[in-house]
Amino acid sequence: MIVRVEVMLKDGVLDPQGEAVRHALGALGFEGVDRVRQGKLIELDLAEGTTEEQVRQMCEKLLANTVIESYRIEM
Amino acid sequence: MIVRVEVMLKDGVLDPQGEAVRHALGALGFEGVDRVRQGKLIELDLAEGTTEEQVRQMCEKLLANTVIESYRIEM
Repeated sequence: MIVRVEVMLKDGVLDPQGEAVRHALGALGFEGVDRVRQGKLIELDLAEGTTEEQVRQMCEKLLANTVIESYRIEM
Repeated sequence: MIVRVEVMLKDGVLDPQGEAVRHALGALGFEGVDRVRQGKLIELDLAEGTTEEQVRQMCEKLLANTVIESYRIEM
């Protein structure tokens, strides 16, 4: 089964990567780009029967740094 | 308006980051993790009226390396 996990920096945490993308888009002539946030998208191919709680544990222990990142599980 | 762009490595392109995550999950005792792919999730706050074609241009010119990455736009 394919499970998707989105990991984004929490609001208020500086995102230099996103800021660099915003700046580069402006330099390329794209107008109206207000804010850019860049996160991670992790696709896991897991054994059938894996529970959401197990995926949550993976996020808490490895996939996300919960001090500065939030995550969302899609299964 | 918030537009989301997902950028993933194309199938067949080696994903060392995803492989490292898969290995680390195994080392942490999580079983049944077959394959992991890691991509980017980019959230753009764009001016109202920005067209999908404009976002596609941003992807082609900056956000994705279309030789090895595919992208998907959600608006």
